[in-house]
Amino acid sequence: MESEPTRIMIAVNESSIKGYPHPSISSKRAFEWTLQKIVRSNTSAFKLLFLHVHVPDEDGFDDMDSIYASPEDFKNLERRDKARGLQLLEHFVKSSHEFGVSCGAWIKKGDPKEVICHEVKRIQPDLLVVGCRGLGPFQRVFVGTVSEFCVKHAECPVITIKRRPDEIPQDPVDD
Amino acid sequence: MESEPTRIMIAVNESSIKGYPHPSISSKRAFEWTLQKIVRSNTSAFKLLFLHVHVPDEDGFDDMDSIYASPEDFKNLERRDKARGLQLLEHFVKSSHEFGVSCGAWIKKGDPKEVICHEVKRIQPDLLVVGCRGLGPFQRVFVGTVSEFCVKHAECPVITIKRRPDEIPQDPVDD
Repeated sequence: MESEPTRIMIAVNESSIKGYPHPSISSKRAFEWTLQKIVRSNTSAFKLLFLHVHVPDEDGFDDMDSIYASPEDFKNLERRDKARGLQLLEHFVKSSHEFGVSCGAWIKKGDPKEVICHEVKRIQPDLLVVGCRGLGPFQRVFVGTVSEFCVKHAECPVITIKRRPDEIPQDPVDD
Repeated sequence: MESEPTRIMIAVNESSIKGYPHPSISSKRAFEWTLQKIVRSNTSAFKLLFLHVHVPDEDGFDDMDSIYASPEDFKNLERRDKARGLQLLEHFVKSSHEFGVSCGAWIKKGDPKEVICHEVKRIQPDLLVVGCRGLGPFQRVFVGTVSEFCVKHAECPVITIKRRPDEIPQDPVDD
């Protein structure tokens, strides 16, 4: 007697070392962990919902010369960022299908922690999965602003998945 | 091709209204949610590990007259608390068996957040589930010291499960 599938929303972001379209170490880890430890062989009982929140650059000109930018340049930038976000999601969608679990994916723009909680309210998943940077080898301070905020504010159960110690880059910013 | 079962540790405590052996609303909710949304029909793929941390009273005499207590009274108190903790766990063990999922259960004494993280280190579960009080109807402040500590410090993924709004008692202390 199986009811509706368990809908798991997974927040994914890009690597801060390699940039788009490469997923961050913690996003990959969160995704793979969910498949291995939760979904397992019961693929038809789960649906994965990938959310990527694109953070706009403050000035919108991170790697182009702002002085000569025209309105057309802005548009191209928007398009390029969207395309890169889609490529990022493609990785997870493809892997999900290979594993045999159904999924959906979408991009939103804004402050990740706010957008994730807003999307939880809108979509009402059964579970939200967020990767987080955990404790670096020389840190005693928790690095995980987004995950911490979601644990407190998201209106559904939240699972936080730290990286494995061997996955932690020397510089905690390099995720 | 199934590997080892996913080992889910669930921290459970007693109701602060009804006391032992009644489980708290958030413990029951965490347990039932785990069965319904994670384990589902795939019962052989999971093993539940129930941990109850008994918090000793500061003076060891919460409901008896301390003046006339003998060393023998202390022993009886210890035994009685242990018996009540076991009865609490019995609820979860019985329900697990009815659901068809295998489980283990044990009691430790001490500060719940410290003991839970210590037991995670010792037992190495795949996932730790902690219920938490969430946001009360008139609160903006997160009530969940234990869960917050575990999210930060436990050496495994942690899922925090808030109560449903209709389960929140008027006084947030009554859990």
